[in-house]
Amino acid sequence: MTSTPEGAPHGEDTRHHVVIIGCGFGGLFAAKALRRAPVRVTVIDRTNHHLFQPLLYQVATGILSEGQIAPAIRDVLRNHRALRVVLGEVDHIDPQSRQLQVTELGRQVTFSYDSLIVAGGAVTSYFGHDEFRPAASGMKSLNDALALRGQIFGAFELAEAEEDDERRQALMTFIVIGGGPTGVEMAGQLKELSRRALRRNYRRIDPHNTRVVLVEGGPRLVAPMGERLSRLTLRDLGRMGVEVHLGAMVTDLTSEGVELTKSDGTTLHITAATKVWAAGTSASPLGAHLAETTGVPLDRVGRVRVEPDCTIAGYPEIFVVGDLMALHDLPALAEVAMQSGTHAARTIRRRLRGDDSTRELRYHDLGTLAVISRFRAVAKIGPIRIGGFIGWLLWLVVHVTFLTGFKNRFGALTRWAVSFVGRGRYERALTGRWAVGGYQPTDSA
Amino acid sequence: MTSTPEGAPHGEDTRHHVVIIGCGFGGLFAAKALRRAPVRVTVIDRTNHHLFQPLLYQVATGILSEGQIAPAIRDVLRNHRALRVVLGEVDHIDPQSRQLQVTELGRQVTFSYDSLIVAGGAVTSYFGHDEFRPAASGMKSLNDALALRGQIFGAFELAEAEEDDERRQALMTFIVIGGGPTGVEMAGQLKELSRRALRRNYRRIDPHNTRVVLVEGGPRLVAPMGERLSRLTLRDLGRMGVEVHLGAMVTDLTSEGVELTKSDGTTLHITAATKVWAAGTSASPLGAHLAETTGVPLDRVGRVRVEPDCTIAGYPEIFVVGDLMALHDLPALAEVAMQSGTHAARTIRRRLRGDDSTRELRYHDLGTLAVISRFRAVAKIGPIRIGGFIGWLLWLVVHVTFLTGFKNRFGALTRWAVSFVGRGRYERALTGRWAVGGYQPTDSA
Repeated sequence: MTSTPEGAPHGEDTRHHVVIIGCGFGGLFAAKALRRAPVRVTVIDRTNHHLFQPLLYQVATGILSEGQIAPAIRDVLRNHRALRVVLGEVDHIDPQSRQLQVTELGRQVTFSYDSLIVAGGAVTSYFGHDEFRPAASGMKSLNDALALRGQIFGAFELAEAEEDDERRQALMTFIVIGGGPTGVEMAGQLKELSRRALRRNYRRIDPHNTRVVLVEGGPRLVAPMGERLSRLTLRDLGRMGVEVHLGAMVTDLTSEGVELTKSDGTTLHITAATKVWAAGTSASPLGAHLAETTGVPLDRVGRVRVEPDCTIAGYPEIFVVGDLMALHDLPALAEVAMQSGTHAARTIRRRLRGDDSTRELRYHDLGTLAVISRFRAVAKIGPIRIGGFIGWLLWLVVHVTFLTGFKNRFGALTRWAVSFVGRGRYERALTGRWAVGGYQPTDSA
Repeated sequence: MTSTPEGAPHGEDTRHHVVIIGCGFGGLFAAKALRRAPVRVTVIDRTNHHLFQPLLYQVATGILSEGQIAPAIRDVLRNHRALRVVLGEVDHIDPQSRQLQVTELGRQVTFSYDSLIVAGGAVTSYFGHDEFRPAASGMKSLNDALALRGQIFGAFELAEAEEDDERRQALMTFIVIGGGPTGVEMAGQLKELSRRALRRNYRRIDPHNTRVVLVEGGPRLVAPMGERLSRLTLRDLGRMGVEVHLGAMVTDLTSEGVELTKSDGTTLHITAATKVWAAGTSASPLGAHLAETTGVPLDRVGRVRVEPDCTIAGYPEIFVVGDLMALHDLPALAEVAMQSGTHAARTIRRRLRGDDSTRELRYHDLGTLAVISRFRAVAKIGPIRIGGFIGWLLWLVVHVTFLTGFKNRFGALTRWAVSFVGRGRYERALTGRWAVGGYQPTDSA
């Protein structure tokens, strides 16, 4: 383990140094808002790509390719000449000396910062049931989505070859855990896939018999969107044939299936090869690390309780934004991350102009959206609640607008045309190692 | 290991049964030509996708996504109702009992056939140097291309982080072995990538300093295209800055680099993290298996010497087509595979109509093409030799025409617009495990 100083071109640069940890929506928008500021910027991320997480389910179900929702960070920020991208993991933050220890591709590097924007995001949480992890894929990273894609298309291949009725039904059963937007969109897409995209593809199984189960612990689907949209979502999913269990907790989960415990105490066992865990997230471990080194309090899910201007009490040079930030009960949405990231960058710019006044983050709620099936979505925009086709049009406009870069917007539009107007799925190639729960090809030999 | 009989819907079907092994160009075109014939068809392939091999280099360099050159076989052939797709590997062919032993997703299955079309294709050959394999990726499968994509984009990431000058140069050196169309296109694309697509992406390295080396054992590049186009190719690659070594054999290859031995006996060592093996192929092992069970002779590279109608002497019901077939010195080209696959299917249809006459395969040479850079290609069409922009337009028309399915044609066209007119690369996301020769991230810790 060697410790090297920062290399060129930053070594000689004496401008105010902003370090941004994480390049999700929070980090990316902070970096963009610093483009013309008199600062140098270092962006540290564990992956080489920014990820448009709201469309991960479309990669998992073969509609979009990885690259379309995950542009290279370097390429997105290429015109920001005083910005450097580091592919690495933050091991330690020392708020006293204003230094970071980073493992950059296996090598230890120390960075000094003048301002620090921590946008570490969230990770999949199994709510204390880490033993569920090997059998239920999360929905947070590109690797999650690709593993799930192999599992979904692999399950139909195995079902087609399976002689045993019970095993075949298990292979054609998909359980989605979590009734938020991600879970709802995933369940709807799995049903679309089996009803339309796989039509006429098999000779021994009928993909129409695919069972899609959506499990939610609370009493309502997409609860933050209000009761009317929850009801609409439930009705639309029901019409598509998605089996919804509300008020049901997952009390056991293995490679073979799940055990659900309903609010009335009864239990239900469902045998299923594929389990998707969209139930919840917890804050990045960077939150706990900041609590340790700065004494900042955390909320129940490990998020950092920041001041109204997104800084840490006593450390005005440290900002926490996005899903890692706890402020006014703001939800963990892309929109909150974008606005808090931009707010942190603007505060830094103001200070560099000599204005040390404190400005609070004022969140402008642009609404939330969830797609149920092609041409059907639910949308909440301020006091307005919209369902059905108009909701879907809104979804289309918003997602095309926020996809990063012209080519991804255009590319996604053409693929949506192929998938929604047509019936095709581009990305069905099974590559490398693919596995389907406890139902691997080698198990059935 | 259990042996199960064929399942429904074929179990009860007494129609003439055609089994096709392999769904590359040969197998796919045979299957398509049998669509309206009074037969049932079983297509057996080791992967779930047909692969448009001539564009593999575009997946490796981030232009196209996997799905765009690899549509699901089931989906391409979905309207062929009497056709079944089996994801499996052929273990044994018994030409006396007309039976096949197949491992279908880990399970042993026996198939009986009335006609058999063997389109097993070719595999990467290291010409007796199998020890080169771990350090030099082949260019035959989707897994090859994806591994290479991770290696190429990973190499630039590692170079950006590297402190040591020599190691940095090694990471920015790419050696392509083999001066046929695949090698030429790969070398040209690597240069395009470093000169245009990665512009402004890095701060410590300049991708312009990327060294791309193309090694060919013979005296000329793309030799079958004739002397004039070989010269043109050499000149165009030279102008782009590709370093070409003709008459150079790879006498050693490790994770660190290669040793070349020139025809005059001198040796040259080049240190390079990334080595691409595009030097040659040998026939699928199914060729040797057929030689053993039918006594059919093989040619020098293990291809099956067929009769002029693509059948095996003494076994008129067994056809060998595509890259596995040796006939009249026909080259291993997609076009030959398509025409021989179609020829076999037509022969079967004719026989079922009671016409047992023998018709020879008459190959219509539609020409060969290789892209050198954007807007420059070389094309040989009958007696005509075309280079430059007109050659490139021809390449465009031919590849759009032969890509399987409308959505892939349209999708590829939009991506080519993005990559050739623009400068973007869609697919740069590093996912899962990526490795760069002997230069893995963990090595540099």
